[in-house]
Amino acid sequence: MKDFNGLVVPTFDDVLAAHERIAPYIHRTPVLTSSYLNALTGAELFFKCENFQKAGAFKVRGACNAVFGLSEEMAARGVATHSSGNHALSLSYAAGQRGIPCHVVMPRTAPQAKKDAVRGYGGVITECEPSTSSREAVFAEVQAWTGAEFVHPYNDLRVIAGQATCSRELLEQVEGLDAVVAPIGGGGMISGTCLTLSTLAPEMKIYAAEPLNADDAARSFRAGHIIADDAPETVADGLKVPLKELTWHFVSKNVADVLTASEDQIVEAMKLIWKRMKLVMEPSSAVPLACILANRDRFRGQRVGVIVTGGNVDLDSLPWMK
Amino acid sequence: MKDFNGLVVPTFDDVLAAHERIAPYIHRTPVLTSSYLNALTGAELFFKCENFQKAGAFKVRGACNAVFGLSEEMAARGVATHSSGNHALSLSYAAGQRGIPCHVVMPRTAPQAKKDAVRGYGGVITECEPSTSSREAVFAEVQAWTGAEFVHPYNDLRVIAGQATCSRELLEQVEGLDAVVAPIGGGGMISGTCLTLSTLAPEMKIYAAEPLNADDAARSFRAGHIIADDAPETVADGLKVPLKELTWHFVSKNVADVLTASEDQIVEAMKLIWKRMKLVMEPSSAVPLACILANRDRFRGQRVGVIVTGGNVDLDSLPWMK
Repeated sequence: MKDFNGLVVPTFDDVLAAHERIAPYIHRTPVLTSSYLNALTGAELFFKCENFQKAGAFKVRGACNAVFGLSEEMAARGVATHSSGNHALSLSYAAGQRGIPCHVVMPRTAPQAKKDAVRGYGGVITECEPSTSSREAVFAEVQAWTGAEFVHPYNDLRVIAGQATCSRELLEQVEGLDAVVAPIGGGGMISGTCLTLSTLAPEMKIYAAEPLNADDAARSFRAGHIIADDAPETVADGLKVPLKELTWHFVSKNVADVLTASEDQIVEAMKLIWKRMKLVMEPSSAVPLACILANRDRFRGQRVGVIVTGGNVDLDSLPWMK
Repeated sequence: MKDFNGLVVPTFDDVLAAHERIAPYIHRTPVLTSSYLNALTGAELFFKCENFQKAGAFKVRGACNAVFGLSEEMAARGVATHSSGNHALSLSYAAGQRGIPCHVVMPRTAPQAKKDAVRGYGGVITECEPSTSSREAVFAEVQAWTGAEFVHPYNDLRVIAGQATCSRELLEQVEGLDAVVAPIGGGGMISGTCLTLSTLAPEMKIYAAEPLNADDAARSFRAGHIIADDAPETVADGLKVPLKELTWHFVSKNVADVLTASEDQIVEAMKLIWKRMKLVMEPSSAVPLACILANRDRFRGQRVGVIVTGGNVDLDSLPWMK
């Protein structure tokens, strides 16, 4: 950990410690390639397949690092979060592996499938009304009652150090990359990527890929300060959340550019990956390929790592069916 | 090659030659596992992912063996087949790799997506009317006109020797398997599996997995002779074709049993694999898991290889959407 004018950020030593701590509970996911997509983009793409990760997403890396880093005493009281997405699944999985409780506050209106998935991984759901005030009030109650440790989905140095293990594996698996492209929502994965690459491969370019419909990171990047969107709507539902101070630290320091893609481009890229690579992955995970296709000149002839962040998608409601 | 009362069948030496011949043109596909599906079945399942294979299916193994085994003189005249499925794609891919023509006779009523896919791999389509007589007449014309070599989708010893390389890889990738389960349509993959395992692991059980709606192989197996179905209807559209004398030779000699699964069981198994393993694969490829789930007692506690035969599915028309 390092102090930046009062902001405590994780260092690469934290990444090494995280990787050792979480190794028994995560997959070292494979890197896949597609000659079709290489021909289409004019680049050499290396897809790091976190859709094959435990609980179906990279977020299990950060969640495991947070859960397995707790003292026995803190662990006994469990962990808590508010999320209805991959962080809730991942934290439930991690807590289950350690045998401690995981409390998840979720709006009562969340889809039954998401509730079932969290319960399937052992999470205990407390429902709130679908409003920020209710969520905060219910979460405060749950925390007061259980004493559980709050693990934020991304603005948490334990979480960022965990996510950083993904690009460390990628560098071991593929030589001579020129760039890495990863989706950006709250910025946990991008921050972890920055943390690892700024130490191991500072010449490698890091691009954040964002839906145009939720382009708060792109606008923040250009403005030089955090801009939060008001309830953005995008098919890439994992990428709606805003940057926070920890992730902004990395984005503002280490990211080469924030690229954007339209909803149509995202869905088309998703379908291309499903069709050509035979991978089930989320709309959010297709944003990097969509941005590469929309910026071919920038990537032509380069070796590019692409983070496929997760595979938890509702098979009964695929975006091209709508 | 070996002569069985006038029937010339491939031997394991043909498999070794095939493997060397096709290695530059195929993927050595990965074997994936799922702790969820292991818990669900009570067995240890090892999925050989031929959905990641070139042209999206195992059939490229046999097609490449046929194409690259041709003399220069024969190769110059090209290859030909009648199929609208994975064999047509695979033969087009293989011919393209050798730089020779591939003629595919297809009903003019075949879906545009299938025609586009064959053309995308370089196949030249000649359309026929959607009847057996038209197909045979047009195919005879094409062959007479081009002199192209006919490569049957499965009743061809070059093709069977090629498909046999799949289970050879599986044995190198996974130790101590008790059984292998593969889908059965015409029987090319199962015959190749029999050819390899009867030499390398004769104690290992081979199960053929078939849709109940197209259970001609199961009925043939019990009757002791080939029974062909009349136009069966199943979601597993790659498995509608009947056994022929070469594949019957292997099925009757080496298969432990032919198991069947209902349409609902196949679609459920397909969805399970998509959801839990994040693999895009065809309905036909889900039949083995469906049969294992329907026969849990038989597989409990065993280490079981499962051939995921292909991933070419119409994303706009998934079976659970119908």
